[in-house]
Amino acid sequence: MAITKRSDDYSQWYLDIVREAKLAEHSAVKGCMVIRPNGFAIWEKMQRALDDMFKETGHVNAYFPLFIPKSYLSKEAEHVEHFAKECAIVTHYRLKASEDGSVVVDENAKLEEELIIRPTSETIIWSTYKNWIQSYRDLPLLINQWANVVRWEMRTRLFLRTAEFLWQEGHTAHRTYDEAEEEALLILGIYKRFAEEFMAVPVYSGLKTESEKFAGADHTYAIEAMMQDKKALQAGTSHHLGQNFAKAFDVKYQDEDGEQKYVWATSWGASTRLIGALVMTHSDDKGLVLPPKLATRQVSIVPIWRTSDDRPKVMEYSSKLTSALKQGGITSYVDDREDRSPGWKFNESELNGIPLRFEIGPKEVSTETVVICRRDTREKESFSFSEAPEKATALLADIQASLFERAREFRDSNTFNVQTYDEAIEVVKTNSGFARAFWDGSAEDEAKLKDIQASVRCLVSDGETGECIVTGKTVNRKAIIGKSY
Amino acid sequence: MAITKRSDDYSQWYLDIVREAKLAEHSAVKGCMVIRPNGFAIWEKMQRALDDMFKETGHVNAYFPLFIPKSYLSKEAEHVEHFAKECAIVTHYRLKASEDGSVVVDENAKLEEELIIRPTSETIIWSTYKNWIQSYRDLPLLINQWANVVRWEMRTRLFLRTAEFLWQEGHTAHRTYDEAEEEALLILGIYKRFAEEFMAVPVYSGLKTESEKFAGADHTYAIEAMMQDKKALQAGTSHHLGQNFAKAFDVKYQDEDGEQKYVWATSWGASTRLIGALVMTHSDDKGLVLPPKLATRQVSIVPIWRTSDDRPKVMEYSSKLTSALKQGGITSYVDDREDRSPGWKFNESELNGIPLRFEIGPKEVSTETVVICRRDTREKESFSFSEAPEKATALLADIQASLFERAREFRDSNTFNVQTYDEAIEVVKTNSGFARAFWDGSAEDEAKLKDIQASVRCLVSDGETGECIVTGKTVNRKAIIGKSY
Repeated sequence: MAITKRSDDYSQWYLDIVREAKLAEHSAVKGCMVIRPNGFAIWEKMQRALDDMFKETGHVNAYFPLFIPKSYLSKEAEHVEHFAKECAIVTHYRLKASEDGSVVVDENAKLEEELIIRPTSETIIWSTYKNWIQSYRDLPLLINQWANVVRWEMRTRLFLRTAEFLWQEGHTAHRTYDEAEEEALLILGIYKRFAEEFMAVPVYSGLKTESEKFAGADHTYAIEAMMQDKKALQAGTSHHLGQNFAKAFDVKYQDEDGEQKYVWATSWGASTRLIGALVMTHSDDKGLVLPPKLATRQVSIVPIWRTSDDRPKVMEYSSKLTSALKQGGITSYVDDREDRSPGWKFNESELNGIPLRFEIGPKEVSTETVVICRRDTREKESFSFSEAPEKATALLADIQASLFERAREFRDSNTFNVQTYDEAIEVVKTNSGFARAFWDGSAEDEAKLKDIQASVRCLVSDGETGECIVTGKTVNRKAIIGKSY
Repeated sequence: MAITKRSDDYSQWYLDIVREAKLAEHSAVKGCMVIRPNGFAIWEKMQRALDDMFKETGHVNAYFPLFIPKSYLSKEAEHVEHFAKECAIVTHYRLKASEDGSVVVDENAKLEEELIIRPTSETIIWSTYKNWIQSYRDLPLLINQWANVVRWEMRTRLFLRTAEFLWQEGHTAHRTYDEAEEEALLILGIYKRFAEEFMAVPVYSGLKTESEKFAGADHTYAIEAMMQDKKALQAGTSHHLGQNFAKAFDVKYQDEDGEQKYVWATSWGASTRLIGALVMTHSDDKGLVLPPKLATRQVSIVPIWRTSDDRPKVMEYSSKLTSALKQGGITSYVDDREDRSPGWKFNESELNGIPLRFEIGPKEVSTETVVICRRDTREKESFSFSEAPEKATALLADIQASLFERAREFRDSNTFNVQTYDEAIEVVKTNSGFARAFWDGSAEDEAKLKDIQASVRCLVSDGETGECIVTGKTVNRKAIIGKSY
């Protein structure tokens, strides 16, 4: 099947790429996806990079139960109100054979209290932290978990919105408000760095407005990226939870002064949604474009021969190249399938977003050269065998940097500073991108944006001050306003 | 709390270690555990090593849904019969506020078809493979997933048997019976190598009897370890599934000869149960003993000072040691807590199973030496600073090898070759360990073992032939008979 042109139907183009590059597909279970090996390989790269960053900053991993007792979910009022509407609920623990031979739920195996599949783990984790925290010596507690979560969604889109998804969720406990604030900002910085340095996706980072914050948080920070259709995609959130969950689960510590005090908390998460952001930021009409740092296979080597005499020479040369690349720290593979033409292999390698393609024919063997084609620009150049690993390294670094620059230029040229609310609405209505404006508005002031399917994505601080487009008050924060996924 | 002596109460000793070394604990949800950071660090090491081995042999990771439609589970008769009795069942997808203000299941949000939380993923995966496999060119399909699974258990024991646990499950598709057989044995070999080389746990590997095989398999292979109480623990299984799931889900491929044929399959898994096996094999009355290859922190450095003059010198020296160890590829940490005595730190490091402890006092600083204490034998020796990294490397290798040898000697000296069924029963009844005997018995012949809570753990082939203790027939397989977890 062909890939729909981006310019014809962006939404279909995205789904075509996800399907054709074999990243994911819908499963037999409504709302749940299968993440195929090509898609999962990207997730593994993302996990490794993020996990390293978390560990470098003192965090450790743990694992908490999939199930949350219904009564736990209910302990934080805002939290349950938000998540109650999208819960998968376990009510029974046994099937039995029915009289007609089919298998049915055994009504004798009904749970006393229903269990909720975690939509997020604050409640089960804070019920556990109660036993782990007694003294200020037990703080801070810096824990992360990699897990699956379920939020029942009717209108799903692969990676971007599915009933089950994979993510990491950090849950930390601190002695003071300020320490928790520092943690929330530290993680926001890690998310931004990961998005920009690994995914090559530029992001605005800042505070969410009251109406967009996490249910149960004191305040929420987020990173927001612009997709190629100029819509925003939230790519990671970091919440200062105040003492809300500590109070809900009665988690106190004895401070150095001997007093019992409630603990301060943060939580933060990034999910397989990032794969969707990656696809939508860089890909083109030929298929996926992957930043080299997240590509499991960075180079595809396509051997080309006409006569059976050529074949062994070309194959040997290709295999020598793989070894040379490996020594240079570059992962490559030789596409030696007999039943596919070189042209077919070129297309497939482009579809799969392999950053570099090496084309090796008899001419390259005899002249000891290599033709290298970049995925991002599709430019070809010839190099000598001996300089190939070094050139490949430089090209991969250049692709990584170029993808980021291209995306940043796109975002910046589609972000418009506006002076009035009407201008902001005009930008969004005409699908021109993001409007950026000094902002001191309330939830009511944001209401007009809902009417045009837009919202304040985040509030950024760049040191400038100016008059809020709603209240006229002088403030040092700007709103990034746009439509979003 | 103190640790119960192994010799007094083995079962309690195990639970005490798991609790005191902070590996895991029971959660608020019946049957589910929280894997604490110390326990999860071991799992991460295990995952990395196994994942590398799977990838080296051509496997890739993917992710399939947590939920299985009830009708899918029912498609393979043996499979559903086994798992139906221990299923967590999702019946609803929304909560609502009740009149009294509490939160209740919304009866208007009942699923048309109930969803089962995966107890294992053969059915959801084979329903997916149906779309992925058309031709012999699509085979083999070598896929693994790391996931959580749920099997409702009433009598739980941390790591060994819990309602939810973490594991990897491989699911492969092949063209022929023989190719699937080769795969099942390849994985059995990987499990054995992992157990012995990383966990330092010697295992018997072989075939399961008909009555002990996986529900839905043609035949099952397993690795079986002996714990310190001489009971067996199954530590990994590899199943040849025949064409059972291919037939249940109608998965055929067109072979080179143009014919449509059912696909052959394997599946295989190892779980967080391995952590239990690790604890029960090596630990002692002082706490956990970890093989160096699975220890995240291999060396604890305890600085010791009396006067405040000594402190900075000792600390600086300790910190230099960490750097030197790091250069040698050894992970270490300085236990610089002010409010704990050196003795307390020694005990904690032993409790946590850190393989080596360095003791650094003013004497060591002035003589440029290091006192190194091994966790396994608790022997101490002094070395010069300069040779410390090299000695530590050698000691870690020696600990890894010694733990394995010690466990192997224990197992071998508690495995008895027997000539009659009565002798076998005597060995098991007196808790002497494993009986090993030529075996050609049927499921009925195994029945007597059930009466004494024992079973044939696996059938091993060591090249010898002899008379079956039940039938008298000459066979080339021996049964390993024992009680088990």
